[in-house]
Amino acid sequence: MSEKIYVFDTTLRDGEQVPGCQLNLDEKLMIAQELDKLGVDIIEAGFPISSPGDFKSVEGIARVVQNATVCGLTRSVKKDIEVAAEALKPARKPRIHTGIGASDIHILHKFNSNRDEILQRGVDAVKYAKSFVEDVEFYAEDAGRADLEFLARLTEAVIKAGATVVNLPDTTGYLLPHQMYDRVDYLMNNVPNVDKAILSMHCHNDLGMATANTIAGIRAGARQVEVTINGIGERAGNTSLEEVVMTLKVHKDLGLHTDINTEMLYPLSQLVSKTMRMPVQANKAIVGRNAFAHSSGIHQDGFLKHSQNYEIMTPQEVGINKSDIVLTARSGRHALKHRLSLLGFNVGKDKIDETYDQFLELADKIKEVNDKDLVVLMKQLTEAEV
Amino acid sequence: MSEKIYVFDTTLRDGEQVPGCQLNLDEKLMIAQELDKLGVDIIEAGFPISSPGDFKSVEGIARVVQNATVCGLTRSVKKDIEVAAEALKPARKPRIHTGIGASDIHILHKFNSNRDEILQRGVDAVKYAKSFVEDVEFYAEDAGRADLEFLARLTEAVIKAGATVVNLPDTTGYLLPHQMYDRVDYLMNNVPNVDKAILSMHCHNDLGMATANTIAGIRAGARQVEVTINGIGERAGNTSLEEVVMTLKVHKDLGLHTDINTEMLYPLSQLVSKTMRMPVQANKAIVGRNAFAHSSGIHQDGFLKHSQNYEIMTPQEVGINKSDIVLTARSGRHALKHRLSLLGFNVGKDKIDETYDQFLELADKIKEVNDKDLVVLMKQLTEAEV
Repeated sequence: MSEKIYVFDTTLRDGEQVPGCQLNLDEKLMIAQELDKLGVDIIEAGFPISSPGDFKSVEGIARVVQNATVCGLTRSVKKDIEVAAEALKPARKPRIHTGIGASDIHILHKFNSNRDEILQRGVDAVKYAKSFVEDVEFYAEDAGRADLEFLARLTEAVIKAGATVVNLPDTTGYLLPHQMYDRVDYLMNNVPNVDKAILSMHCHNDLGMATANTIAGIRAGARQVEVTINGIGERAGNTSLEEVVMTLKVHKDLGLHTDINTEMLYPLSQLVSKTMRMPVQANKAIVGRNAFAHSSGIHQDGFLKHSQNYEIMTPQEVGINKSDIVLTARSGRHALKHRLSLLGFNVGKDKIDETYDQFLELADKIKEVNDKDLVVLMKQLTEAEV
Repeated sequence: MSEKIYVFDTTLRDGEQVPGCQLNLDEKLMIAQELDKLGVDIIEAGFPISSPGDFKSVEGIARVVQNATVCGLTRSVKKDIEVAAEALKPARKPRIHTGIGASDIHILHKFNSNRDEILQRGVDAVKYAKSFVEDVEFYAEDAGRADLEFLARLTEAVIKAGATVVNLPDTTGYLLPHQMYDRVDYLMNNVPNVDKAILSMHCHNDLGMATANTIAGIRAGARQVEVTINGIGERAGNTSLEEVVMTLKVHKDLGLHTDINTEMLYPLSQLVSKTMRMPVQANKAIVGRNAFAHSSGIHQDGFLKHSQNYEIMTPQEVGINKSDIVLTARSGRHALKHRLSLLGFNVGKDKIDETYDQFLELADKIKEVNDKDLVVLMKQLTEAEV
């Protein structure tokens, strides 16, 4: 029996706060509706107290979203919570996401406080949020560097206060997957009321570990993942929605699944990239331009023989139409012959060596050989024979 | 005592074979020399038999590199090995990298062969390469999906035949970190002569796991990492050099280090991106434009109070000059005041609310507020008062 992982999308909150990524209201509404169609379970729509514009967009998103829970961020501050509750009023399923710093470095240097005071402020915030909505998520900021015994105590206290979800952010992107596993495993085994709430993974990619840490956390028992389209977010970004979703789809051995409609991944990646003005690099996993392109001779040959040799998922699954093959000086005879046959040129055994030599000369010169170049090349070869 | 991890850079082989990334000879020589200065231990310079251009560049790189070992790729084919040996002749420290598919799916569908035959071909290739150079690396292609007992047998056999390094590529980018750890751990404990060679990690990023898998492998005992600058490479790319190097630097707890001069990471990332025409996305870990930028109000406030709150490494360590702060509608009063003071405007307590309201209005309108916008805003506010 496969267990469900809840997908909490924060493209419009943690993603949208990135310099240069700001959207206007219409763009936010459009993306929120697309996320709803994609099948995410929760949409974090913004941080209502942070600006009048953010308030309005949370309110607007709450109004248009049909299926997903709509969530607003707050600090552990009464005014924040009141404003968020107000913005979320139109939502069918509203959630308030409140929290406070949990690591000693945050407690001491950011809040000039101590563990007991912070725990009390967290508990008070959850209780206050609960007076407005049923569904309250608590974030223990910088959980990745927090004292584990204190984190367990804090988790227990906020669950007792009514938190339905406890988010354990690796705020600085510091942890390694085995460490994340051990921390979540500790909480699963040392928080007596942990079965009364869902633990959530919110990872940052500063060391390139966000996806791996998220997977490690859910292997240990967390059941919600906080992610963004294309992994956009502060600094090196948040965990990529598409990477987590496809990892669970490819690794059925984990016994976990999401309700995401994976064929929408590529189109939505393109839409977010365009509206947020954040180009996706060609070698981005799952949604990059080259993610399904095979170019080297050894690989092309193997790929043509049996696509499973080099493909653990198909481009169709993520909404891309085909595995592109681009020819270069590294492409082998087999790949050239295949490409030419698709273009209508059937090169016999007697001619393939000569054709291939000419192709290599061209590839060394122009690097990437596309279909048009091949047609020109073939015409030159044929004409020379006449 | 910290143990050394050998850095094997394949930017010029597995990276360069990506569509659109092809370099001319001068560019390759320049990048090879920069990699040498960066402190990589091995430079994979190309696949000599694949084209005359590749042969020439391997030969050229072998000539100019001063410190690093220079390596050429081959299949388990005599002619490949002869041509590679020829191209590597000028190298001070030459290495031949030969190998063959090791997973049943490759053995059956690509080679139409069986395990015993493949093992013999691998052993023969290592022995033949050994007749030209001392340093021979063997790759067990698709090791990530290979039968583990066979992989152990193959590893033992090629080490016995003289391989100095055994590379275990996760060719399709399929594995998860805990699986990689278990596989390498198995080999460390079940290959009797494993102490006679170094195991190497060569990961692909199809599920976003390349860096995490590489770290998992070296935690289990591998001592070489195969990486590229910016993580470029086939499909979703190879493991990022900069991510692995900085992970080891930040995580001294692992007791592992490289000899990389980290202050060259950012400049070299820029150089490779430019010459290979492969833009690095803004949220790329370590070397992206935003990797050290802090924009949200909560974060900026914490960051200004104590930079360690949000920074696990400094931009200076990787050769970037400063942690950029960009103001948006999410920036708080503290961040605005700090930025204004850097620009020479000291806003008193009596004025900060008004200034901040005006700033928010501007930020909601133009999204990203840079220093020039702030100066214009402050002039308007001052003039209005007159």
